[in-house]
Amino acid sequence: MSERAAPAPRDGFSIFYSLNTRWADNDIYGHINNVAYYAFFDSVVNRFLIEEGGMRLGHDNVVGYVVNSSADYFSPLTYPQELELGLRISRMGEKSVTWEIGVFAHGAALSSVTGRFTHAFVDREANKSAAIPSGIRRAIEALKSPSDS
Amino acid sequence: MSERAAPAPRDGFSIFYSLNTRWADNDIYGHINNVAYYAFFDSVVNRFLIEEGGMRLGHDNVVGYVVNSSADYFSPLTYPQELELGLRISRMGEKSVTWEIGVFAHGAALSSVTGRFTHAFVDREANKSAAIPSGIRRAIEALKSPSDS
Amino acid sequence: MSERAAPAPRDGFSIFYSLNTRWADNDIYGHINNVAYYAFFDSVVNRFLIEEGGMRLGHDNVVGYVVNSSADYFSPLTYPQELELGLRISRMGEKSVTWEIGVFAHGAALSSVTGRFTHAFVDREANKSAAIPSGIRRAIEALKSPSDS
Amino acid sequence: MSERAAPAPRDGFSIFYSLNTRWADNDIYGHINNVAYYAFFDSVVNRFLIEEGGMRLGHDNVVGYVVNSSADYFSPLTYPQELELGLRISRMGEKSVTWEIGVFAHGAALSSVTGRFTHAFVDREANKSAAIPSGIRRAIEALKSPSDS
Repeated sequence: MSERAAPAPRDGFSIFYSLNTRWADNDIYGHINNVAYYAFFDSVVNRFLIEEGGMRLGHDNVVGYVVNSSADYFSPLTYPQELELGLRISRMGEKSVTWEIGVFAHGAALSSVTGRFTHAFVDREANKSAAIPSGIRRAIEALKSPSDS
Repeated sequence: MSERAAPAPRDGFSIFYSLNTRWADNDIYGHINNVAYYAFFDSVVNRFLIEEGGMRLGHDNVVGYVVNSSADYFSPLTYPQELELGLRISRMGEKSVTWEIGVFAHGAALSSVTGRFTHAFVDREANKSAAIPSGIRRAIEALKSPSDS
Repeated sequence: MSERAAPAPRDGFSIFYSLNTRWADNDIYGHINNVAYYAFFDSVVNRFLIEEGGMRLGHDNVVGYVVNSSADYFSPLTYPQELELGLRISRMGEKSVTWEIGVFAHGAALSSVTGRFTHAFVDREANKSAAIPSGIRRAIEALKSPSDS
Repeated sequence: MSERAAPAPRDGFSIFYSLNTRWADNDIYGHINNVAYYAFFDSVVNRFLIEEGGMRLGHDNVVGYVVNSSADYFSPLTYPQELELGLRISRMGEKSVTWEIGVFAHGAALSSVTGRFTHAFVDREANKSAAIPSGIRRAIEALKSPSDS
């Protein structure tokens, strides 16, 4: 949210996903709309949770609810570009994790957009906060280690 | 983005718009998805710019680009609820304005979600930053006065 | 799908819902995008199923899956218009129903867009086709009667 | 729209595009929502128009408006699958073209969804119908030839 936010360098991210833009991502100015990026963030993190963390869509009792999110927009992107989304952890607690996502034009050194959001984990049946499930915690720890070393 | 963010009281907002939720706003957990709220924010502010600020869709040379945005999520909402969106100004400069939007369940005293984003105005032809157009500035000033008095 | 499709008159519809357009519904040409109308259709029918047919979001075992859909576009609409959506039944069988939706500019006599889609009901646990649930069937029959009389 | 619609075989399509699904494509039943497919169709055709037909986003005076669209849904798909979209021409006139799109799970022989829509070309300044621009016509003809030979 700071006005001094700066693009994020590519090598600060631990894992990358490619993402096709869509016609509907463009707004009336011919740029990818600010809202669309949040859909990108959501997709990347949920894909990580499913593929790396063993999350089973619609079957888990403990799930992450988004409690806050934000983004800084540095340079416009446009459909039909192919994008690369970098993912890293900016903070992990007992019951919550904050993801940071960098949106890069294909091959770019600096992010066009950087966003972040916090998942607070909730036991849906008990309707109360819960520890991060162990499979997800392990995936997060594996994600963190490359950049730590 | 602070973890201590709290719901916003209804009487802090200057103008309200009603908004129908849509089936597609619900995610797999049966709640309005975190991304959808940013589409709500965008809609409310652009409606204000058009109806109060004289913005002519697709014809103006000076337009607002979103440079940052954020939201805090306090309690879930679900399609098919009717919502009320309150709009206020949190900061206005020479060339930019920061909007704040409270999302309220119909009749609720406190916001379920509060978001904000900054429009930096740009001269599209010259491709450089520009002063807020006078019609929009007047509308913003009119929006501010009720809560200031 | 016929090229001779014509706008539908307002009085052919049994029930109406109002719908706010959103900024993101507009495409790069400043018109509501062809895709957005299908989101409108989905919203109107699911609202009818919930409010009139007793559908409980995420709790029913027998649900309707969309097996086909189509739309004819007669005249452009633009955010921030308020729309009225008319709903009627074009065909009902034992296990499926075809909905027809007319999208009207506020107060317009003829539809700007007319669409339709077929719900085939499925028992999710058994993973096979199922009769239309009785509450939904009753709501459909109540919807049909005004225009039949 | 026929109830006898059948999945389309892969070899009936002339050109393929890969497409990442997104978290928001899933509906409350954990399947890609019927509406999302129309966004896929739109994306594939516009990408073809830009990359093969020389369409310049937001700069062309003659553009295609969608006058009708339809889809048949044969089997559910789910985020985070990777999809392949096949494109072919089902009809071309002087001033309009009907596109057909097959949505395939990665490597599948038969489409999970098949859709189609008609673009009628319009001179935006004159606000009247127009011949298909020559660059687009050439691209369409090139698309047709492989399957004709």
